[in-house]
Amino acid sequence: MSKEQRARVDAMMRRPRPEGPRSVEAIRAGFEALMAQMIVPGGIRTARATLGGRPALRVEPDGRARAGTILYFHGGSWVFGSPETALSLTGHLVAKTGFGAYSLDYRLAPEHPFPAAIEDTLSAYRALLDSGEDPSAIAFAGDSAGGGLAVTTCLAARDAGLPLPAAVVAFSPGLDATRTGESMDTKAGVDPVFTREAVERTGAMYLAGADPHQPLLSPAVLADLTGFPPMLIQVGTNEVLLDDSTRLAARARAAGADVILDVTADVPHVFQSFAGVLDEADEALDRAALFLGQRIRAEGAAHTPAG
Amino acid sequence: MSKEQRARVDAMMRRPRPEGPRSVEAIRAGFEALMAQMIVPGGIRTARATLGGRPALRVEPDGRARAGTILYFHGGSWVFGSPETALSLTGHLVAKTGFGAYSLDYRLAPEHPFPAAIEDTLSAYRALLDSGEDPSAIAFAGDSAGGGLAVTTCLAARDAGLPLPAAVVAFSPGLDATRTGESMDTKAGVDPVFTREAVERTGAMYLAGADPHQPLLSPAVLADLTGFPPMLIQVGTNEVLLDDSTRLAARARAAGADVILDVTADVPHVFQSFAGVLDEADEALDRAALFLGQRIRAEGAAHTPAG
Repeated sequence: MSKEQRARVDAMMRRPRPEGPRSVEAIRAGFEALMAQMIVPGGIRTARATLGGRPALRVEPDGRARAGTILYFHGGSWVFGSPETALSLTGHLVAKTGFGAYSLDYRLAPEHPFPAAIEDTLSAYRALLDSGEDPSAIAFAGDSAGGGLAVTTCLAARDAGLPLPAAVVAFSPGLDATRTGESMDTKAGVDPVFTREAVERTGAMYLAGADPHQPLLSPAVLADLTGFPPMLIQVGTNEVLLDDSTRLAARARAAGADVILDVTADVPHVFQSFAGVLDEADEALDRAALFLGQRIRAEGAAHTPAG
Repeated sequence: MSKEQRARVDAMMRRPRPEGPRSVEAIRAGFEALMAQMIVPGGIRTARATLGGRPALRVEPDGRARAGTILYFHGGSWVFGSPETALSLTGHLVAKTGFGAYSLDYRLAPEHPFPAAIEDTLSAYRALLDSGEDPSAIAFAGDSAGGGLAVTTCLAARDAGLPLPAAVVAFSPGLDATRTGESMDTKAGVDPVFTREAVERTGAMYLAGADPHQPLLSPAVLADLTGFPPMLIQVGTNEVLLDDSTRLAARARAAGADVILDVTADVPHVFQSFAGVLDEADEALDRAALFLGQRIRAEGAAHTPAG
């Protein structure tokens, strides 16, 4: 059953695409169309908001929210995507946990290369803290590039002298602009989503000439994760980015951080997007929801059941 | 709070022990006394049973059990321990999942060295299958040496042409009789439970001259995990056995198996035994229970809520 589902998802991702490099506009529109097919769960409501000077999508459970906040960073190689393209993922996390979320519309490359995105995510976190939210009641979560931002925003917060959030959840995070993971080669062709050429093309837009050998761009290779909050990293084996996750988990263990490296075989990049279609997606999101519920501790506000 | 709990547990484990090598009888009695302090949850009942020709402890939820079976293997370096010394762990898994369990009293070294234990665990699994239980409704679970048996019994079952169980849960598994993990040295002194000398002494009793370079003794180094069921491996960073887990997880990923490597910092060997005392223990068991619920699929018997 589920083996068939995994194969169907793989085939979906391999559908023929336009040959050759596409314009940034075409990439953005194509991703928007793809992600519009993903299932947004019921039981949530959304509203436009602003956080740290950037637009954000507020996502809340229909009923009474549990005390605590998920700060969500969408995927899209730092070049495309939006809170709307990640709404299936953010919505499932909200529906399954009962926590409210802000999904940030951070600035994108090539118009706004590194470190614009991290400036925005850090500002959003600072705004949450300034609003009175306790760091122990905040978790960062994100997929792909946004999973990378969930990690690097912790680095930036630590460097800025801010307290760290209670937890990090990263789905197939992009954590290595040096592209030195073995899986970049061993998973070439196996990965139905990415090629080295594709990630290098958008990666170059984000770098805009910056040296990739720095912790905010390649945390899986260079970051000191001392003092990091508990992390849950979920990744598929059919990913050129697999070793971004395995190497970050090894660094986290070595730094004395709690880290769960949750690997699902034969599924593609950010397979959690297929919730409702692929059992592994729903199950992975249930594990992420349990982890968030265990780690987000709202001080002075007892956990109340969702909705 | 939890940082204090972790420190308290570490101090408990470091209490002065008798100097020098103790007799097997003294080791067994000391372990029994230690584990008798662990909290056995309410909501379960136990009964003596026999499985595959060996005694076993049947552990069931007080109410109606969910369809499916946990086959549990206790820890104790293949030399000590019993279903009773692991009752806190088995009981929490049963109470949290609603599945019934058999905890097997497999034969121990030095009276019965390798491969006696694996012969017994394989016989128990075969007896479950012969009784009509579907392999998709069975999970292997175990701690320490028993976590090792949960893995090696899968290898033995595959070699015997049997279908594999639905899942494996291993708490701080012992997976390397060659003792070549880096953590054997890097965690020396950090580990409040084990020294290289201690594991080599009991290890020699289990080996009884057998070559440690074989998959059934050192699966983290030598086993082909192709076709393995989903695994959840939980381990602490204060363990000389840490890299038994990290290397098995890497082999599982490479073999295309689903694997969750769930690492908790600053906790000792089989920290889940401290459920009720250490928050991390209860939380880890909750994650294990979710995993078991996701993986055990009783065919022809819908999942029914526990109790």
